[in-house]
Amino acid sequence: MDIQAMLQRAYDYGITYIDKGVVANYIPELAKEDKTRVGGAVVDTDGSVYTVGSDQYQFSIQSIVKIIIYLCVLEHYDFDYIQKFIGVKPSAKPFNSILALELSEKNIPVNPFINAGAIVGTSLLFRKYGNNTFEMILKRTQELIGNDKIDYSRSIFNSESSSAFSNRALTYMLLNGKIISPDVNVDDLLNVYFKSCSILVNVADLAQLSFILSRDGKDSAGKQRCNAEHARILRTIMATCGTYDYSGEFAIQIGIPAKSGVGGGIVTASRAGYGIGVYCPGLDAHGNSYVGTRMLEVIAKELSLNIY
Amino acid sequence: MDIQAMLQRAYDYGITYIDKGVVANYIPELAKEDKTRVGGAVVDTDGSVYTVGSDQYQFSIQSIVKIIIYLCVLEHYDFDYIQKFIGVKPSAKPFNSILALELSEKNIPVNPFINAGAIVGTSLLFRKYGNNTFEMILKRTQELIGNDKIDYSRSIFNSESSSAFSNRALTYMLLNGKIISPDVNVDDLLNVYFKSCSILVNVADLAQLSFILSRDGKDSAGKQRCNAEHARILRTIMATCGTYDYSGEFAIQIGIPAKSGVGGGIVTASRAGYGIGVYCPGLDAHGNSYVGTRMLEVIAKELSLNIY
Amino acid sequence: MDIQAMLQRAYDYGITYIDKGVVANYIPELAKEDKTRVGGAVVDTDGSVYTVGSDQYQFSIQSIVKIIIYLCVLEHYDFDYIQKFIGVKPSAKPFNSILALELSEKNIPVNPFINAGAIVGTSLLFRKYGNNTFEMILKRTQELIGNDKIDYSRSIFNSESSSAFSNRALTYMLLNGKIISPDVNVDDLLNVYFKSCSILVNVADLAQLSFILSRDGKDSAGKQRCNAEHARILRTIMATCGTYDYSGEFAIQIGIPAKSGVGGGIVTASRAGYGIGVYCPGLDAHGNSYVGTRMLEVIAKELSLNIY
Amino acid sequence: MDIQAMLQRAYDYGITYIDKGVVANYIPELAKEDKTRVGGAVVDTDGSVYTVGSDQYQFSIQSIVKIIIYLCVLEHYDFDYIQKFIGVKPSAKPFNSILALELSEKNIPVNPFINAGAIVGTSLLFRKYGNNTFEMILKRTQELIGNDKIDYSRSIFNSESSSAFSNRALTYMLLNGKIISPDVNVDDLLNVYFKSCSILVNVADLAQLSFILSRDGKDSAGKQRCNAEHARILRTIMATCGTYDYSGEFAIQIGIPAKSGVGGGIVTASRAGYGIGVYCPGLDAHGNSYVGTRMLEVIAKELSLNIY
Repeated sequence: MDIQAMLQRAYDYGITYIDKGVVANYIPELAKEDKTRVGGAVVDTDGSVYTVGSDQYQFSIQSIVKIIIYLCVLEHYDFDYIQKFIGVKPSAKPFNSILALELSEKNIPVNPFINAGAIVGTSLLFRKYGNNTFEMILKRTQELIGNDKIDYSRSIFNSESSSAFSNRALTYMLLNGKIISPDVNVDDLLNVYFKSCSILVNVADLAQLSFILSRDGKDSAGKQRCNAEHARILRTIMATCGTYDYSGEFAIQIGIPAKSGVGGGIVTASRAGYGIGVYCPGLDAHGNSYVGTRMLEVIAKELSLNIY
Repeated sequence: MDIQAMLQRAYDYGITYIDKGVVANYIPELAKEDKTRVGGAVVDTDGSVYTVGSDQYQFSIQSIVKIIIYLCVLEHYDFDYIQKFIGVKPSAKPFNSILALELSEKNIPVNPFINAGAIVGTSLLFRKYGNNTFEMILKRTQELIGNDKIDYSRSIFNSESSSAFSNRALTYMLLNGKIISPDVNVDDLLNVYFKSCSILVNVADLAQLSFILSRDGKDSAGKQRCNAEHARILRTIMATCGTYDYSGEFAIQIGIPAKSGVGGGIVTASRAGYGIGVYCPGLDAHGNSYVGTRMLEVIAKELSLNIY
Repeated sequence: MDIQAMLQRAYDYGITYIDKGVVANYIPELAKEDKTRVGGAVVDTDGSVYTVGSDQYQFSIQSIVKIIIYLCVLEHYDFDYIQKFIGVKPSAKPFNSILALELSEKNIPVNPFINAGAIVGTSLLFRKYGNNTFEMILKRTQELIGNDKIDYSRSIFNSESSSAFSNRALTYMLLNGKIISPDVNVDDLLNVYFKSCSILVNVADLAQLSFILSRDGKDSAGKQRCNAEHARILRTIMATCGTYDYSGEFAIQIGIPAKSGVGGGIVTASRAGYGIGVYCPGLDAHGNSYVGTRMLEVIAKELSLNIY
Repeated sequence: MDIQAMLQRAYDYGITYIDKGVVANYIPELAKEDKTRVGGAVVDTDGSVYTVGSDQYQFSIQSIVKIIIYLCVLEHYDFDYIQKFIGVKPSAKPFNSILALELSEKNIPVNPFINAGAIVGTSLLFRKYGNNTFEMILKRTQELIGNDKIDYSRSIFNSESSSAFSNRALTYMLLNGKIISPDVNVDDLLNVYFKSCSILVNVADLAQLSFILSRDGKDSAGKQRCNAEHARILRTIMATCGTYDYSGEFAIQIGIPAKSGVGGGIVTASRAGYGIGVYCPGLDAHGNSYVGTRMLEVIAKELSLNIY
C-alpha cells in the first residue's frame, strides 16, 4: 500500500465537501479559522510518517484532550472507583446537555467525553495536583506525542474562559450533586480545563497520539508510553462515545474508534496499528469535522480499519 | 370578631403540628433555628395590630423577598416586556429545578417565585442600579413595611453565598440562554440576591407587607405605597405559584394567595383587607412552614378569606 | 347593571379578535366548525338568563366535561383517596404531554383537567358503573344543567375515537404504572371518555352549569344540585388549572376560575354568583377560545368578578 | 485451542454467579424459568459445533429477534430511508423508556434494539406483508439459523400480549407522531411483534445465527444467507446498542458485539468468525443474562475476540 497516495486520495475526496462544514462560532477565537484549510497525517505501522495538506498548521486540540484527561484519571485512580464519578455509557444527547446530566441515574456524567465528564475528570486530577494540574496534563501530552514543544494558545484560552457559561453551569450542578468536591475553586478548575482544550497540535501530533493508542501504548521505538489496558479502555470509549451524539452513525459509516474536537481535529485508534490524525475546522451539525470525517471514510476503507 | 382570640386559636392549633416540620439544613445558618418557635400577626382592616407567640423574633425573609423583587421589576419595566424574561406560569416542579428551566418553552423561568425567576428579576434591576441594587431593594422593603430599621443578616448572607451551587448553576444557564445579560458580574448579582434573602423581619413586618398587598397598595393611613395594579398582579401570582409545587394543594386547603420562605415565614394577600404574617421554621416537604400553614388554615377559615 | 347591554359589549369587543383564532383540526369533525360563530350567556344572580349571538348553537363540551367527571369522582370517593390517583397541581406542560406524566412524582396525572387526569377519573367511575358509566355521566350532566334533552354527538364521538392515538398512549402508560386498574377494557373506558367529550351543549347550558358551581351547588330555585364543598374544590382547580398551560396568564388577565374546551366553549365559576358561558371555536395556541377569552375579559371587568 | 474445554471453563466460571441473576417477572410465563439452567454453544470457524450445559433447552428469543426484524427491514428498504423511522444512536435510557422517545430529535426511536425501534421495524414489514408478516419473519429466522423446526411458543405469546401495556403505549405514541402509518391495526401489529419475541431457540440455534453474522452472511457450506453489508451494519449496532443501557460497560468488559434478550439468551457477532450463543434466565439490572455475560467474558478472552 502506498500510504502517501492513499492519503492524497483521502484529501482529494475530503475537499469536495469543503463547503458543507461550518466553523465553530461559540468561541470567538475559533470563529477566525479558515475552513478551507485541510490536513492529514498517517504513521505507518513501522513508524514512518506521511502527511498531506496543511500538515504544519497548529490548531487547538479541544475535546480530543478528553482522551488525555481520562487517561491521567485512569493512571491515578482505580477503574471501579472512577465509575462512581464518571460513567462509560454512550449518550444520544448533545455534548453540553444539562438535561442529560439531571436525568442520568446518579447525576454523574454518562461518559468522560461529554464536557461534564471531562470537568469531573479534571477535578479528580486537581485533588492530586492542585495548581500544578495543567502543567501535569501538558507534560503528559508532550510525552504521549513525543513532542516537548507542545504548548497551549493564550488567545484561545482567553477566548474560551470568557464565554463558557454552559461549562460553568455544569460545574456548579456537579458541585451541587457532590460529584465534584466542594473545596475546589471553580475558576482554577475551569482554567485547567480551558487551558487543556487550548493545547495546540498539528495533524502529525495527533497521528502520534493515535499511534500510541493503537499499539497498546507502545511508540515506534517499542517504548511503553502508557498502559496497554488504559489504551484498550480509551479505544473502546472512543468507539462508543467519541463523536458525540453522532457516535452511532460514525460507527456504521467509518467503523473505527475516533475522537473529534470542535477545533476541527479528529484522532483515531485502531488495533491495526496505524496512527491517524486529520484536520479541517468546518464542522457538521454534531460538532465533528466535516471534511475530516470524509477523509477518514477513505482511510478506513483503504487500510481496512473497520473494526465491526 | 375578636382577632386576638382568633389568633390564639390559630396558634394553639398550629403548635399541635410542631413535631412534623423540619428545619431547612441546606444553609448552615438556617439549620440553627429553633423549630418550636412560633409567631403570628394580623393587621385588622382598621390598621390595628394583633400578635401571638414570638412576635419580636427576627428571621430571614428568604423567598418572600421574591414578592418585593418582582414588584421592583414591575415598577421599572413594562409588563409585556418582562414576559420575555420571566413567565407567570405555575410549575409542578421543585423551586430549584434546572430541568424545569431547560424544558420550558423559551428557556425562561416559568414564574418570578422560583429561584431562577427571582435571579432574572434581580438581573433586570441590576441593569438600572448596578452596585446600588441591593440598597434599592432594602429601601423599598423598608418603605413597603414602614420600618426603616429593617436590615439584612451578615451571617445568613455569608452562609447562603458559600453554599449556593444550584443558584450559581441556574445563573450560568440563564447567561448561556441569553436571559441574563452577559455583562453582569455573577458574584455581584448573586450577592444582591443572597443579601435580599437575608433581610430580617418579624411577623408584624410580614403582616404590614401583607396589609399593603391586600389593600391595593394603600397603608392604614391611606397612603399609596405601591401601585394597585401591581398589588393585584402579585396577589394573583401568589395564588398560583406562591407555595412552590404545593400551590395547587394550598389553594384547596387554605384558599388564599400566599408566599412562603424557607426561613419559616409565610405572608398572605387577601382583598378582604387584612394583613397576615406567620412564622415557624419547621418546614414541610415542599419547603413551606408546617405550623405556619396550619395557622393560616384557621385564620383563613375564621376570617372567611378563601377567595375561591 | 344592564346585563344584556354588558353582554353585547363583550360580544362586540370579542369579535374584533375573530381572525386570531384557529379551529381545532386534530379531530376531523371539529375542523368543520365555523370560527365566526360566537355566542355568550349570563345567568344573573336572580336566575334570569341573558344571551347574545349564536345562543342556540350546540357544540361539543370537550374538556369542560372534565369538571363533571371530577365532580362525579368526588361524589363517589374520599378526597384523600382520590389524591393517590389524580393530583391537584397546576402544570406548565401542554394538556396531552406524556413527558409531564413520566416526570411527575408518582406517575399520577398532575391534575384532573389534563387528559390523563380525566381518563383516570373516568376509570374510577368505571369501577362502580361499568358499562353504565357514560349513562351516569350524561344523566349527571343533565341534572346539573337542568336540561334533560342534553345528548352527545355520534359523529363527533366517532371522529374522536378514530384519531385518539395520544389518549390511548396515555391510557396504556397509566395501566403500566398501575394508576388504572388492569381489568378495565381500554376501548370501553375510552369510549366513555370520548362520548363524554362529545356531549352537546349551548352557551345557556354552560351558563347554568356555571351558576351551580358559582353558588355552592344551589340552582336558582334554591335546590342543592351538588355538594357545596365539591363546588368549592372545582372552582379552586378551575382557577389554578382550568385553561391548560395558560392558566397563570389567564389568572392575571381575566382573574376568574374557568374551564375551556377545544370545542370552543368556556365556562366560569365565580362566588359572586353569576353563571357565565361563552363560545367561539377559534382557539389560541394553548387550546382556549380566542374570542371567548376576550369576551370574559369584558364580563369579568364589568361585573367585578376578578377574585384576586 | 480446545474449544470444548474452553467452553467448559466458561461454564464453570459462569455458574459461580448463578445466585446474582433475577428471572424476568414482568411476563408471567418467563417468571417460571429455572435460573440454574445454563447453556452455551460455539460454532468453530470450520463449522463444527460445541455445546455445554442445557444445550437442548428451548427458550424464547425475546429481544434477540430485533436483529432479525431489522435485518428484514434492511432487506426491504433503503438504509437512508430507514433512518427517517429508526435511528442508529446508542441510548443511555432503559429499553422501554417513553421519555427517551419524546426527547429524541424527531420523535423516532433512537435505534432498532429498543422496543420502540423494533415495533417501528415490524410496522415497516407490515406494510409489505400484512397478515403474513409473522410467517415471513419466522421463515427468515429458520433460514438464517438453518433449522426449519423453529416455531414460537403459544403460551409465551399469550403471556406477552396480555401484559404489554408499555409496548401499547409506545405504539400509540409512534402512531401519534406519524412514525407508524395510521392504517395499521395495533393488535395485529403487536401480535406480530409478540409472536416474534416468543420464537423458541436453543443455544446452538443462537450460535448458528451468530456464525452467519460473524462471517458476513455466509454459512459453513459457503452459502450466502444474508447480505455481507447487512451483517456488518448489524454487528455495528450490536456493538453500540446491543445490551441496552449497559452497552458502554459491556464494550469495555467483554468487547464484542452482542445482543441479549430478557429470555436469558445472548448472541454475539465477531469478525473472527466464530458463532456463539449462551443462555441463563437470571438477569442483571439492565436485562442481560448475568451468567451468560460472565461466560462471554471467558470466551471473548480465550478466543481473543475483543474488537477494540
